Amino acid sequence: MLYYSYEMFREDMKRLIEKLDYRPDAVLGITRGGLTMAHFLGIALDIREVYTINAISYFNKRQEGDIKIFNIPNLGDAKRVLIVDEIVDSGKSMQKIFEVLGEISPDVEFKSAVLFHKPTATYTPDFYVREASEWIEFFWEVDLLAPEEKR
Amino acid sequence: MLYYSYEMFREDMKRLIEKLDYRPDAVLGITRGGLTMAHFLGIALDIREVYTINAISYFNKRQEGDIKIFNIPNLGDAKRVLIVDEIVDSGKSMQKIFEVLGEISPDVEFKSAVLFHKPTATYTPDFYVREASEWIEFFWEVDLLAPEEKR
Repeated sequence: MLYYSYEMFREDMKRLIEKLDYRPDAVLGITRGGLTMAHFLGIALDIREVYTINAISYFNKRQEGDIKIFNIPNLGDAKRVLIVDEIVDSGKSMQKIFEVLGEISPDVEFKSAVLFHKPTATYTPDFYVREASEWIEFFWEVDLLAPEEKR
Repeated sequence: MLYYSYEMFREDMKRLIEKLDYRPDAVLGITRGGLTMAHFLGIALDIREVYTINAISYFNKRQEGDIKIFNIPNLGDAKRVLIVDEIVDSGKSMQKIFEVLGEISPDVEFKSAVLFHKPTATYTPDFYVREASEWIEFFWEVDLLAPEEKR
């Protein structure tokens, strides 16, 4: 298990911005995991057009995850949108979001940036910082817990 | 000038959650300032229904700030929504958002939670942690800057 601290996030975000040979005109964070990233990136790239999209996985009777995408934002005049999330795990959410947005906004270019990616995922993000090889506890998930609530 | 670090934010968020004698069924972050808060609160309160709303101030010829509210999310079945932002400064954005949402969703109860409030603002948030008495540099605004970019 990796505890991913704020300090690790801060340094990784600097590396991600260095790697980002792309100038988006809007940032789209996937809720909830991509919210803090979207906040930092919007400010670092001086982009006020920061939007979010909801993606929730539901498990059906066959235990296959159905992904519900909702609250699709109006992207305004944006032509290059950077979609951000903390991790590409199975790849299904990101794939579904690209599908849905590509249908609605065929003239917009979408790229993706994440902190962690998995080589086994069905989707490879355009920009990433680390490979995920173990379970990750992100600081936004555990730092507000009382000591007895932590594992 | 106050540099507001991640550690201060983490401790203030714990205090905010302690003060919060309110059980929302959705969290609505004002973009960009409320994004990191919305992320942490959604997880701490175990709420997957985390939404965002865009509020941008424009200055007209008379130098009065017009506030444009857009990307108003579909709140689904939510009946109690906690609107979050980092600071209530003039109070105008929060007031406008309450007006707009109250018209669209008259049956939903909206409350507000912020880190900083100003006694001079035209709007007093329902929950807050600190009083703002000086200029605040939030960690999400400055921590990714190279040393020479910081003031």
